[in-house]
Amino acid sequence: MRWADQDPYGHVNNTQYLAYLEQARVDLFFRQAGEQGLASFERGVVIARHEIDYLRQVVYRAEPLCVELWCAAIRAASFVVEYEIYDGPAVGAPLVARARSRCVLYDLAAERPRRLDEAERAFLEAHAEPAAGAA
Amino acid sequence: MRWADQDPYGHVNNTQYLAYLEQARVDLFFRQAGEQGLASFERGVVIARHEIDYLRQVVYRAEPLCVELWCAAIRAASFVVEYEIYDGPAVGAPLVARARSRCVLYDLAAERPRRLDEAERAFLEAHAEPAAGAA
Amino acid sequence: MRWADQDPYGHVNNTQYLAYLEQARVDLFFRQAGEQGLASFERGVVIARHEIDYLRQVVYRAEPLCVELWCAAIRAASFVVEYEIYDGPAVGAPLVARARSRCVLYDLAAERPRRLDEAERAFLEAHAEPAAGAA
Amino acid sequence: MRWADQDPYGHVNNTQYLAYLEQARVDLFFRQAGEQGLASFERGVVIARHEIDYLRQVVYRAEPLCVELWCAAIRAASFVVEYEIYDGPAVGAPLVARARSRCVLYDLAAERPRRLDEAERAFLEAHAEPAAGAA
Repeated sequence: MRWADQDPYGHVNNTQYLAYLEQARVDLFFRQAGEQGLASFERGVVIARHEIDYLRQVVYRAEPLCVELWCAAIRAASFVVEYEIYDGPAVGAPLVARARSRCVLYDLAAERPRRLDEAERAFLEAHAEPAAGAA
Repeated sequence: MRWADQDPYGHVNNTQYLAYLEQARVDLFFRQAGEQGLASFERGVVIARHEIDYLRQVVYRAEPLCVELWCAAIRAASFVVEYEIYDGPAVGAPLVARARSRCVLYDLAAERPRRLDEAERAFLEAHAEPAAGAA
Repeated sequence: MRWADQDPYGHVNNTQYLAYLEQARVDLFFRQAGEQGLASFERGVVIARHEIDYLRQVVYRAEPLCVELWCAAIRAASFVVEYEIYDGPAVGAPLVARARSRCVLYDLAAERPRRLDEAERAFLEAHAEPAAGAA
Repeated sequence: MRWADQDPYGHVNNTQYLAYLEQARVDLFFRQAGEQGLASFERGVVIARHEIDYLRQVVYRAEPLCVELWCAAIRAASFVVEYEIYDGPAVGAPLVARARSRCVLYDLAAERPRRLDEAERAFLEAHAEPAAGAA
């Protein structure tokens, strides 16, 4: 979190949560996948839909939130990322939001959707169980 | 739009759209309602849920996007705002996103939900038809 | 301005002003220069330094701030943009900040500074007097 | 850093650095001072001026930048924070920016500057030597 993510009501502004979700996806699909030699997510995944339910207000503190995320609904050319955000260092902390993002594989050069390849599918299936990160 | 709303892919980042929706809500519930003597929305409405579908990528240009919004599902202590975002000066431009936000009336001092009063309900009902703004 | 540019103190956060300056530069060097057939600023100008003095707090309102800017200290490979930000629709409104940015011409492909060409120099010299925009 | 701090040029946008400086100040003046029982900085310090020199471009990576900061020019009602930002985990990494911020003690309720008290002065003097944080 950043102190200025808070708005005049003294809580983290609702628009900032999508940035926290993005950081968690970047960590999984860019950093972790990249470390396994899988760079293709970084070359083209677009967001088709977000849903987010806000369950509690969050006040800034120095310690990061915990974002747990996992993959679901893996299709030919899309998948869903599901998330839970906790106001504390780990999953036992109060749940502040639940969210899901539908992601579409996209060929940025050709400007059209593309199909998941085998390595991508295997990576998504390997992350179908909740795993925690920090935002 | 701001030029820096764009990310390294050269498109407006998906997280920024919620800020555009917020600007459209602020214009309706703070400015327009305030001009009619109705200041109570500003003292306490919280977002319980957002849903947004992204239909096209947007590239920065100087002219604002058009955000059309209207109120729906008006309940005792909540209502929904629905939106369409167009990439151009008016509603005929290409549709880039559809969204809905569930808003809960909230007593910020007492930290608990509260009921809509008559003036608020009348304002919401008067805005149940689409009307355009700019973001 | 955006409502969420405000922080928990209820004022526009100091970090947001650089975004307002950027919007004023984008309008001059990308849009206005582009309309005159001069696209080279967009292909490579980097910021080497910012200075900004904050004179008054700003509270969000729907109307844009007025940003006046002009070019100064035009050198072989750099120039300075100077700004005044007014809290109102025009230059007569209360002055809220003064700023200056040193800009360096940069070849993004070769990753090194480059010299101003004649068309760029003429554009900068034509904008050496204050002119107002909105942010 | 956040991935979306990058702009279409693929580098961290210059306007984001002020947010990194803010995070470093929040850590020192709100968190560290607060842990020592000194809450008065949080109740009122305003930024009167920023200067920042950009020395190198920064590309997003998962690891935080290192921000070193210290206090200087301690006066009756103001002080300066000086910073160096390094693109790596510690001070030996490449220096990407140098900055200074003039901070004014401010009584937010009375809306006027105020004098440093003894505890605040002692805290600033104890932090007159560079110390590293992360942003």
